[in-house]
Order: sequence, then C-alpha cells, then structure tokens
Amino acid sequence: HASKIPNVGTTIFTVMSALATKHSAINLSQGFPDFDSDQELIDLVSKAMNSGYNHYAPMQGNLELREAIAEKTATLYNASYHPESEITVTAGATQAIATIITTFIGKEDEVIVFQPAYDSYQPMVELNGGKVVPIQMKASKNFKVDWQEVKESVNHKTKMIIINSPHNPTGSVFSGEDLVRLQEITRNTNIIVLSDEVYEHMVFDSEKHQSVCMYPDLKIRSFVVASFCKTFHNTGWRIGYCCAPNELMKAFLKVHQFSVFCVHHPTQKGIADYMKNPQHYLSLPEVYQRKRDLFLDLIKDSRFKFTPAKGTYFQLLDYSEISDAYDVDLAKRWTIEQKIASIPLSVFNSNGSDEKLLRFCFAKKEDTLKQAADILNSI
Amino acid sequence: HASKIPNVGTTIFTVMSALATKHSAINLSQGFPDFDSDQELIDLVSKAMNSGYNHYAPMQGNLELREAIAEKTATLYNASYHPESEITVTAGATQAIATIITTFIGKEDEVIVFQPAYDSYQPMVELNGGKVVPIQMKASKNFKVDWQEVKESVNHKTKMIIINSPHNPTGSVFSGEDLVRLQEITRNTNIIVLSDEVYEHMVFDSEKHQSVCMYPDLKIRSFVVASFCKTFHNTGWRIGYCCAPNELMKAFLKVHQFSVFCVHHPTQKGIADYMKNPQHYLSLPEVYQRKRDLFLDLIKDSRFKFTPAKGTYFQLLDYSEISDAYDVDLAKRWTIEQKIASIPLSVFNSNGSDEKLLRFCFAKKEDTLKQAADILNSI
Ligand SMILES: CSCCC(=O)C(=O)O
Ligand SMILES: CSCCC(=O)C(=O)O
Repeated sequence: HASKIPNVGTTIFTVMSALATKHSAINLSQGFPDFDSDQELIDLVSKAMNSGYNHYAPMQGNLELREAIAEKTATLYNASYHPESEITVTAGATQAIATIITTFIGKEDEVIVFQPAYDSYQPMVELNGGKVVPIQMKASKNFKVDWQEVKESVNHKTKMIIINSPHNPTGSVFSGEDLVRLQEITRNTNIIVLSDEVYEHMVFDSEKHQSVCMYPDLKIRSFVVASFCKTFHNTGWRIGYCCAPNELMKAFLKVHQFSVFCVHHPTQKGIADYMKNPQHYLSLPEVYQRKRDLFLDLIKDSRFKFTPAKGTYFQLLDYSEISDAYDVDLAKRWTIEQKIASIPLSVFNSNGSDEKLLRFCFAKKEDTLKQAADILNSI
Repeated sequence: HASKIPNVGTTIFTVMSALATKHSAINLSQGFPDFDSDQELIDLVSKAMNSGYNHYAPMQGNLELREAIAEKTATLYNASYHPESEITVTAGATQAIATIITTFIGKEDEVIVFQPAYDSYQPMVELNGGKVVPIQMKASKNFKVDWQEVKESVNHKTKMIIINSPHNPTGSVFSGEDLVRLQEITRNTNIIVLSDEVYEHMVFDSEKHQSVCMYPDLKIRSFVVASFCKTFHNTGWRIGYCCAPNELMKAFLKVHQFSVFCVHHPTQKGIADYMKNPQHYLSLPEVYQRKRDLFLDLIKDSRFKFTPAKGTYFQLLDYSEISDAYDVDLAKRWTIEQKIASIPLSVFNSNGSDEKLLRFCFAKKEDTLKQAADILNSI
C-alpha cells in the first residue's frame, strides 16, 4: 500500500533532530528555541482550561482570538480582515499551508515555488496532482528573486504562487519592490498567492516586514499564513492562522472543517488574552537580532563565510573553504563527530543543487550559542 | 475560486450549534458534554506546560503517550501495536480520518461507506478523487449491515471500507459476528479498513466494544482511529490517534508530517500521565449508560418512539407520530420555537433519505437532560 507521495522521505527536521538526540549533539537543526514560552502565556492557557474553554471552539477559531488577529493586522499592516469571515485559526501554519493547497490545487495545476523552499510545499502540491514550477534563488545572487523569470514562468495553468518572507531556510527578506513586482505579475490573473509569513516578527536591522496584505491588489488574491508557535516560542502548541478575502476563505473552510474541524481551544483563549499586550510580539526583532549578532560575533574568526540573516531565526554558513563534501553528508557527519547539528540546504532544492551551505538555528540561549560557536571555531 | 469540493456546505454540527446559540436553545445537537474535563487531567496538562513540554513533540507523538496507548490496546483488546512505528497521535480523530483517506485514496478508487455516515468521510473521499459506494443501513432493520450486499459491492476498484462502531449517528454497535463477516470479505484482498472507534468506551448493557484489532486478519489491513476528546470530555483539545501495522503507518506518516507535523505537546504529556489510571476510561460505560437511562426514562411517556442506543452518547428519537415534516426543517424549527436543538439524520445519507429521526446528545448534566425532557414531553 503506497501512499500517494511514495517517493517522499521523512522530513529533514525529524531526521536531523533524531540524529542530534542520538549523538548528544547541540541541536541547531530543527527550528525551535531551547528556551521556554513566557510564564504569563502558560498561565493564561492554564487559566483558560480552568475556566471552561475545553470544548469545541467555533470551526473558524475562538472569536476573541480572531478579533485580536484582526486588530494586530490592522495596526501593523494597515490591512483589514473581517474576524467573522476572513480569519481562521489553524493547527499550526503547516496545516494552513496543507489545507490551502488541498483546497485549490488539482490535476495539471502549476504552482510556482521559490527554491530553496520549505519542505512541505512540494509534497502537498504533488499529493494533490499539481506540478511545482521551481524558481531557483541563488546564494551567489543573495537569494534575490529574478522577477522576469517569474513573469515568464506564468501561464494559463499557473494556479498559485507560494512566497515566504522572511525566508526559511535562507534568512533573506522581500523588499517592497519585490512585492510590487509580484503584484504587477499577478494583477488581472486568477492566480492565488500563498504567503507564508511565519517569521513576520523576526526582521532585523530596522527593516520592516513586508506583508502581502499591505498591497491591495495582492491582498485580494492572497492567503497570509502566520504562526503563534514561532512568535511566542512554543513550537509544540501547533497553532497558527490564515487570513484571506471572504471568497477564498469560504472555499478554504469547506476543507478545513473536515481536516481538523478546529484547534486546541484553551490555547486559543490564552493567546487571545496574551495579545492584549502588543509588546509581546513587538519586542521580537530585538530579542532575535541580539541572538543573531551574538552568534555571528562569536564565529567571526571561524573558517565559515556568511552574510547576516535579514530575518527568521536561521543563519546560513558557507563551508566551502573547509570541505567540499555533499552538504547532507557533512551535516550528518558533523552531528556525529563534532556534536553540532544543522540543516543541509540542498534538500530544499528539487534539483538537489548543493551550494555548500548549512542552516543553523540561533533561537537558543546565550550559553548554547557559545558552546556551538566553540565547536564551529574549532572546525 | 471554487474549492475542490464546491458543493459541500458548512457541517451540520456548526449550523445547528450556531442556531442553538442564536436562539438560546438547549443544545443537544453537536456532540459534546456540557460538563468539564476532570480537574486532575487539566492540572496534568498545566503541569506539562510548566515542565517544558512546549516545543515540538516527535512527529508520531510523545513517546510516553504512544506507550500508554499500546498498553491500553494490549490490555483491552489483546492486540499489539509497536509504539515506535505503529501508533501516531493526531489532531483529533478528524485529522486521522482525513489523512488516512488522503494518503491512500486517488482517482477512480472506490470506498464503501455505511450510511447514515459521519459527515467528513464522503467529502474527504471526493476531495481525493475517489467515489463513495454507500451501503444503506435502515432504521426499520435496526441499522444492521447487510453483509451480503457489502460482499457484492466489492470489486477490483474497492480500495477502502470505512466502518464506525459504536456508530454515530445511530448509536448501534457491531457484534463480533459483524467483524467476522467483514474479515471474511476482506481476507486476501488489498482493501484497507478505516475503523472509526472514537466511541469505543461508550458501549452499554454489559456488551463489549468489538475493535477490528481483535481480529488478526482484519488488524493487518486496518487503521484503528480513536479520540481522547470523546473519552476524556474535552472535545476542544483536538487530540486523537490511530494505530496500524507498520507498512500502512509508514505511508500515513509521509502525509501526516506535512499536514500538521505534530500535536499539542503538553496535552499529549498530560494525557500520558492521566492514563496511568485505567479507571479514567474504564468508568465511562457506566457514566454514559446512567445518562442514557435517565434521559430515556424521563421521556418514556412522550410521543417519540425510540430504541435505546447501544453505544455512543447519542440517542435517536423517531418523531413520525408527531409530524411528517422533513427532518432538517423540523430540527431547525424546534431549535427556534421549542428551544431544543438536535441533529437531523437525513444529512448523513447521500441520497438524503429521511426516516423521521433526530439525534440527541445525552452527554449532558442531569439538569440539562431534565430541561430537555420537559420540552420533549410537551411536544
Ligand atoms: C515542523 S519541524 C520544522 C521546523 C522549522 O520550521 C524549521 O526548522 O524550518
Ligand atoms: C466536529 S463537530 C461534530 C461533533 C460530533 O462528533 C458529532 O456531533 O457527531
């Protein structure tokens, strides 16, 4: 009994985290903090459980949480989504992405994906009979998108474009100019844009996150996907959301209701309460920029080359002056021998192209970053 | 932009619950208790959040929870599943069902479904390009399955048979004889059995739940789907699981990892600890049988006809001596005018056939059941 995606292996995040555990390596592979969520938020979720929020939430999500999301989106991006009909709470951003693709992509549909790309996009497109049209972003070009190439890749079969800024795994971010180009390309088409913005609150060096919802002609065709797990340091709580114009959301909900129905209710209520203080997310760029700067300062004399991540909590390191091994082999070898785990980049390219890059997660305590730097400096 | 299941409406459970709320009706429609989860369990989940269980669980689920499931299954059904490779924790039984169907069902595949059927099966099959082959169970025959008809419905396109015992919405249960017949029909075929057993702990009158995993030649081809939300009275926690032989589970995980990745971690840990006391689920038949008996005793002189539910927390009432209205109209009208909400049964038949039956959820406090009975006695 083969699954409909027989050729897909176990996600690299599970593979590398398991290897790190097995060999007691410092785990900078799978993206999660090694510090805990705010005690205040934990207490709010406990309080919700003790106040009767233990039965089904509405299918679209707890209304207070949807209202908090609407308010945040209005304040930060000056974009309006109706909490009753244009916002849905999901079981993590992963489920939002899976359900959006499942709702709209069918046989023969083409989906433009920028690579290196998060590893759930392509299997979900293929599971639904669609075809990924990859646009390669190259390290040598600072992972800039060639919009002319995108324009030429669009045809009558193009049903969706998936974007992701701040970008995992490269740490690059789209500029306003990038979104303007995307808006031009998609204007007057039926293309749906899936915008994975889970790292929206991690943009550094005083830049501002560019959300598709800031661009009216993009907003009308877009799903914005966001994650509370990334924002509030509790990746195991599996809670995110998506926003889209009513017509798109209506189609989404037809599938969502039979995919998960709804999401952990007390967590929704706890987060709704926690969001009353916007500092809880507005403080994030500073928190993570400090970590990035510390990490890069600690390894500045190592043999790795790097360009500082502009966003996300991931830093690419170029090992080409140290080894010419295949990145997957090297990531595994260093986990076992050097006791440091990272994510090889080539697995995110459907052509497997290997640019000698490894991704390190710096969402870690200072002490962990110091231990990691000691190892990297010794390599 | 139509979804791939454009003709599906909003699930009846959301429709009726919303109507009940709007008209302040007693809500015996959507299946959830009006009492809360055990304080001990709530405290265990809070404790897990305060002990660092807030980041990703393993993709298959927290290992302690998988071990607890394996032990429970061994004790209750004398069936062995390996916790490492044959058990996966899911975001509710709904997600398990959706992902199993998505993993295996493609274009032209036929899926045998017994109707009336839970309303997520058919849309998920059709979303994946498959075709539902309905087998109608009739109230006039006590919802007994005609296995000869099943046998004749099997052909080379039959990829899956979905069963559900104890059965929602009818409250009927399969006997050992039913499973023996199913085992005979599927023996030496490639048919996968999806066995929705979310009401496994609610079987009454000293009968015992018959799980597919008790029948070796069924077990080898089956997914058993179960729900902690139903068992521990916290439908809003969205946590269930499925068990299957390793080969089937391997295929499932390829899709699961990109559908939700994993499930609310502290809830998994809390439930793992809670399950150390088997009384927490072994006490269930008594709790719900008492409620069923109370409810039926209270309405024994009403104009409704009924056969006591053998399992689940739902009771069908036959209103044919009161009205000949279409069941959907009547359920809505009584919600508005009589202030009591129920679920009409015809929506669970793909041919829409209406046998003048409404489903009432008796997972309610005594006081709620008394208020409901007062209304039903006055109709
Ligand atoms: C679902 S595990 C992947 C975590 C993550 O987002 C990453 O490491 O990129
Ligand atoms: C997901 S809401 C449906 C609840 C339920 O299982 C039922 O009422 O049958």
